[in-house]
Amino acid sequence: MTKDIFIECHERIKPFIHNTPIIKSELIDKLVGAKIYFKCDNFQKMGAFKMRGATNAIMQLSNTEKRKGVVTHSSGNFAQALSLGAKSLNVPAYIVMPESAADVKKEAVKNYKGILFECKSTLKDREDKANEIVREKGACFIHPSNDLNVIIGQGTACKELLEKKTDLDFVFVPVGGGGLIAGSALAAKYFGKNCKVIGGEPFEVDDAYRSLKSGKIETNLSTNTIADGLKTQLGDINFPIIKKHVERIIRVTENEIILSLRLIWERLKIVCEPSCAVALAALIREKKDFRNKKIGIIISGGNVDLSKLPF
Amino acid sequence: MTKDIFIECHERIKPFIHNTPIIKSELIDKLVGAKIYFKCDNFQKMGAFKMRGATNAIMQLSNTEKRKGVVTHSSGNFAQALSLGAKSLNVPAYIVMPESAADVKKEAVKNYKGILFECKSTLKDREDKANEIVREKGACFIHPSNDLNVIIGQGTACKELLEKKTDLDFVFVPVGGGGLIAGSALAAKYFGKNCKVIGGEPFEVDDAYRSLKSGKIETNLSTNTIADGLKTQLGDINFPIIKKHVERIIRVTENEIILSLRLIWERLKIVCEPSCAVALAALIREKKDFRNKKIGIIISGGNVDLSKLPF
Repeated sequence: MTKDIFIECHERIKPFIHNTPIIKSELIDKLVGAKIYFKCDNFQKMGAFKMRGATNAIMQLSNTEKRKGVVTHSSGNFAQALSLGAKSLNVPAYIVMPESAADVKKEAVKNYKGILFECKSTLKDREDKANEIVREKGACFIHPSNDLNVIIGQGTACKELLEKKTDLDFVFVPVGGGGLIAGSALAAKYFGKNCKVIGGEPFEVDDAYRSLKSGKIETNLSTNTIADGLKTQLGDINFPIIKKHVERIIRVTENEIILSLRLIWERLKIVCEPSCAVALAALIREKKDFRNKKIGIIISGGNVDLSKLPF
Repeated sequence: MTKDIFIECHERIKPFIHNTPIIKSELIDKLVGAKIYFKCDNFQKMGAFKMRGATNAIMQLSNTEKRKGVVTHSSGNFAQALSLGAKSLNVPAYIVMPESAADVKKEAVKNYKGILFECKSTLKDREDKANEIVREKGACFIHPSNDLNVIIGQGTACKELLEKKTDLDFVFVPVGGGGLIAGSALAAKYFGKNCKVIGGEPFEVDDAYRSLKSGKIETNLSTNTIADGLKTQLGDINFPIIKKHVERIIRVTENEIILSLRLIWERLKIVCEPSCAVALAALIREKKDFRNKKIGIIISGGNVDLSKLPF
């Protein structure tokens, strides 16, 4: 891994992504006692940072591979990201989703011309279906977070942030499957000036926190959190990066997530997913450690079901 | 009224307001069949366009008047706008609010150093209290919408929009007290290239629609709308401007307002007030008349009670 690989990735995907805005709130700064810059990837194409990694992974395929298409299993933002990324690049995208996924998510995939395959909802069913498509279509499987091209792509959000705010002391990101935090940690290493990356994670799905403690990948036994984007597990490609480059992971309660979500919606006037609020909640919980620091927070996505708000 | 007065107003208030961003949604463009530019004054200081007019009105006072302070009665955004505008200019602001107003609104005024006076909730009680303060403190009364300095200030949102998007065919704005639409109509006349201003108004409070029909100011007998910012009445200063310069007012149902509000939140990923959605709802209702046109929509404010969402 070198800095150049990161720069090449960013140049490659630039025509297909937005360089999203950075916004501030005086009130939140005052509340935390620090200067906070929110990098708004809720305004990213298809509504989440996942567009970055999906696009990079597809673009790294050979022309022969591209003709045969890409496949993933996801019921969340990566399904939409791979569909839209593939559509922009004229590549077929086969998306495996559980039958039980919300209709609005299935429709979003179809709107982006993803070819939907439904299956039962266990991980094994999803993997079997994806493997079947790999065999039958010769399509290339792309994992939502445990793939180096995806990880580097996700890191471009943090790279853009550090290009505009060059002297950040810390960047806070939510931790789910580990792609965003691994990519951000690499971006901070290459493009920051002694900038450290800190993860926010719900107590309810604290596999990354426990994995950092034990030194090996731990699993979640339950996933009872409002931050639905963070239920996925770390992988063997992103975990070594996280172990080496992430400063610390801070766990937060469900109530802290909801309070931070409300703060973002009310003060920044933006719609974002509960997962994003986990990063701010982590900072607020341990704010005494970050007084007067310059801090970036990555707002990871904005695809929310407005019928299911916690307010 | 001349173009120069508008330009001077804008230069005067620029240090105290944000030039708010303009955003787009491909999906909403496709749905309407037009190119739509959303001018986001939900990101304005204190969260609404009212900051513009309040600041301009205060700055037009003499130093003697400024020392004695300003007074208004409002339970909405103008109370906060006058408080923050006055605070920035080191002027006392006396704000009359009904006792029944939400605590969060009273707190917001106090946070901006407004001096709160509570009264019973009839219009007569509010006016009596405001008049008493004018007499006792020598403070200057500033009306939230029926004041030429306020009207011109509000029009700077449309001016900024037309400076960035010079060839708009139409600008849609919500109609409440009439300050924003009167100011926008003047801005379109001075800074647009044959750009017409169209109002959106709920059927439930259609005083402006009926006033344009009859040629005289009509009143609302009930105010049963979710668009709580639009319950106020037209005045004798803004109505003549509206009569002369506004192309048309389109009325919308409560259900259309809620659907448009949802579309803005889901697709633009921004938090805005139901009032803002009235402008988009008006465009969607009559979209056949606006095919392939370039259209601006002013997102008027973002101060929402998240506990009372219609989703």
